[in-house]
Amino acid sequence: MGALPREFFNPRSVAVIGATRKPGFGSGIPRLLKRLGYTDHLYLVNPREHEIEGLPVYRRVTDIPDPVDLAIVIVPRDHARSVIEDCIAKNIHAVILETAGFSETGPEGARMEREIADLIKDEPVRIIGPNCVGLINPHGRFTSTEVALEDITPGNIGVIAQSGVFGSIVADWAPGQDLAVSSLVTIGNRLDVDEADVLYHFAQDATTDVIVLYLEGAKDGRRFRKALGEASRRKPVLLYKSGRTEVGRRAAASHTGSMSGVDGLYEGLLKQAGVIRASSFQELFDLARVFSRQPLMKGTDTGIVSTSGSLGVMAADAAVQWGLRFPDLSPGTLEMIERQAPAWMNVKNPLDVGPSGLFGPGLEGLLRDSRIQGVIAIPVVPDSTMRLIADRGMGPDVLTGDVEALRRLLPDKPVVTYTVGGAFWTSLARKTIGPHFTMVRSAETAAKALWALHRYYRFRRDNP
Amino acid sequence: MGALPREFFNPRSVAVIGATRKPGFGSGIPRLLKRLGYTDHLYLVNPREHEIEGLPVYRRVTDIPDPVDLAIVIVPRDHARSVIEDCIAKNIHAVILETAGFSETGPEGARMEREIADLIKDEPVRIIGPNCVGLINPHGRFTSTEVALEDITPGNIGVIAQSGVFGSIVADWAPGQDLAVSSLVTIGNRLDVDEADVLYHFAQDATTDVIVLYLEGAKDGRRFRKALGEASRRKPVLLYKSGRTEVGRRAAASHTGSMSGVDGLYEGLLKQAGVIRASSFQELFDLARVFSRQPLMKGTDTGIVSTSGSLGVMAADAAVQWGLRFPDLSPGTLEMIERQAPAWMNVKNPLDVGPSGLFGPGLEGLLRDSRIQGVIAIPVVPDSTMRLIADRGMGPDVLTGDVEALRRLLPDKPVVTYTVGGAFWTSLARKTIGPHFTMVRSAETAAKALWALHRYYRFRRDNP
Repeated sequence: MGALPREFFNPRSVAVIGATRKPGFGSGIPRLLKRLGYTDHLYLVNPREHEIEGLPVYRRVTDIPDPVDLAIVIVPRDHARSVIEDCIAKNIHAVILETAGFSETGPEGARMEREIADLIKDEPVRIIGPNCVGLINPHGRFTSTEVALEDITPGNIGVIAQSGVFGSIVADWAPGQDLAVSSLVTIGNRLDVDEADVLYHFAQDATTDVIVLYLEGAKDGRRFRKALGEASRRKPVLLYKSGRTEVGRRAAASHTGSMSGVDGLYEGLLKQAGVIRASSFQELFDLARVFSRQPLMKGTDTGIVSTSGSLGVMAADAAVQWGLRFPDLSPGTLEMIERQAPAWMNVKNPLDVGPSGLFGPGLEGLLRDSRIQGVIAIPVVPDSTMRLIADRGMGPDVLTGDVEALRRLLPDKPVVTYTVGGAFWTSLARKTIGPHFTMVRSAETAAKALWALHRYYRFRRDNP
Repeated sequence: MGALPREFFNPRSVAVIGATRKPGFGSGIPRLLKRLGYTDHLYLVNPREHEIEGLPVYRRVTDIPDPVDLAIVIVPRDHARSVIEDCIAKNIHAVILETAGFSETGPEGARMEREIADLIKDEPVRIIGPNCVGLINPHGRFTSTEVALEDITPGNIGVIAQSGVFGSIVADWAPGQDLAVSSLVTIGNRLDVDEADVLYHFAQDATTDVIVLYLEGAKDGRRFRKALGEASRRKPVLLYKSGRTEVGRRAAASHTGSMSGVDGLYEGLLKQAGVIRASSFQELFDLARVFSRQPLMKGTDTGIVSTSGSLGVMAADAAVQWGLRFPDLSPGTLEMIERQAPAWMNVKNPLDVGPSGLFGPGLEGLLRDSRIQGVIAIPVVPDSTMRLIADRGMGPDVLTGDVEALRRLLPDKPVVTYTVGGAFWTSLARKTIGPHFTMVRSAETAAKALWALHRYYRFRRDNP
């Protein structure tokens, strides 16, 4: 199969088949597309409506006088087949079939899904779905589902989600998580377009640097393996796979009709393909954020700088368990920090600077040290201290140094940060440090992120 | 050793030794205590100051004309010993020594620490510290460290943190995490009071129902084991222990002078003592919140109800890996839900209700089903849907049912919830569902929480 039609991501004209005035997707999607500027290129279809949102409603998609790039189908299940026939007749190349009730519900639904698959076999149309919400492309200002598109920052993370609800949740959640997305595609039951197609798409897509995959099971193991391998040789692929247990697999089967396969098989396949596997949904997107902004890590030699000894110890424990190592600091680095350090401070790696004010110099020292290949930075500041600083008109750079300049000056080593504490400090830290030294949600995730950056570095080096 | 003096938690009069006008703890703590109403019972001590915050400053603690319940000591290390001598002379029973620079920095500091320990051996004074921030008691409106005490809800979780910075962070972080604390005690280098003392205290303390322990290593393994066992027979004890690896142990040694011991030894000890071990700092406090509000789980038979199939599968996977089981629903429950269910819905356990609107009935069905002993509930709602509902003047109970009434009616089974999504939905859910069906930060944590509630149930049953 070839690449996905461009019409999926940047449709010039859209038909919403099953548009309605009743509350729900059927009215929400037309309203949203109109707001996004599709006014002249939005066609609503429903044999039982005449006018919605000030737009005329066509009885059938074939009645539309202009060419249609993409159809969003939200009709009841039993009408889906005839609507797809109309789409073929109208020469539409991209269809998003959002309707649920197919193979995920049992044999009858599966039969209807197969019928549609047979119908399009030799046609130039591609279908995403059914049982999905289609896609969201913040770069192209297009979405086939109700989300606050203007809140989602266009970025370089391509997301493949199997389930529609899950996709919507990620879209709702992304803005608060500082996740900048290239496109998000939900594939549902995959009667035609599957995870392999979207992997190939993201592998070639110029706006995508990192591919994130939430999957309950592959549709076609062989194709999936090939697509993963090819995508992974070009861009990091991060995966969260559920259906790891028998109960989970049975639940997945009735959710998106997935056969999740035996988990052990996947483990080997993913490893061979250089895929990074996340252990939770939150970790998946933390890792995506790290890969989208930080350089790869060229070795396992790690430095930690923290203002909280406890959190430094937690990060060190986790890093060691991921196979990272903590070399001694170079004599030059030691000397530079010791010159400024108070008597109580132990200058070594991991480096606990406590309240010495040496977090900035410590971080710079680790970044400049040729023995260190990646850094975990844990700036933790009590709200009372940060308020005192803010009251004097100063910012967190008093404590952390000028992280932006530091990143610009020394761009070659990954830095992952973690912080916790009061609302005042954490929101400031997120804004000032987060954009430069990617922030994750735990000391453990920081350690795994560095491991993953190194793991993928090795995969690329060994698979040129 | 006997119980900790009550003066630590509810001092009627406090001396701050090392108070100063310079910014920092030395001025922040007096200001805070004054604001908390200690005006008439706050005595500041510093030979080089005369007046701070409108209060007279005494040269030595022995110059104070009234009795002193508790002394907070923040003088430089080299003055600590003579200050403690004065405290003994003044017959003070509770001293919080916050000064750092003792055993965590090397042999010289360790020697000075031992000197103070020897000094108090036969005296009626107890010392918390050094290298700590003492304690926070929101019930008694007392704190020995700068935190926004009025933001911390008085509650039933007793927290023992080894490190001062860590304790401050937890105190800053607690309000945003809906953590209601009985007291938080940081024990630092433990020259006198150690984790065992505070465990005994919390085991007896009427305001404490759950004990949370962050430890880098025990001071005295035998005493610790005994205290853990005794505390655990009365109240659940949750622990996060760092220093699990050699690097982590070395880092811990220079942080609070801890010898963390070999981790394998701890694993056995903790299991035997019925202690629940958390795998991250975030998980530790999620579990604490669950134990502080939910009943124990009497068996392993679990139900899941979710509006997102994906998240339901994730929770099921994790639950199975923790040894929980998913029985079939009782015929009565099946019948009740099937009667209301749309055609596409698969009524079984785990129960994915999708957008059917049956989350409330599903949750009630699981709670009423005699085959189910604990429930994971995953209400996930797109922001667009929740906004539509809110625009009509309705609340999330349209989707979730009246969770408060449900909890009141059926209080015997634990329910742990997890949600994710947009800011609008998640903040509403936290407010309406969170207080009744404790909310945790991932599907994986929800599963572990139910396991822990059952694990502790068994421990209590087998160790009456």
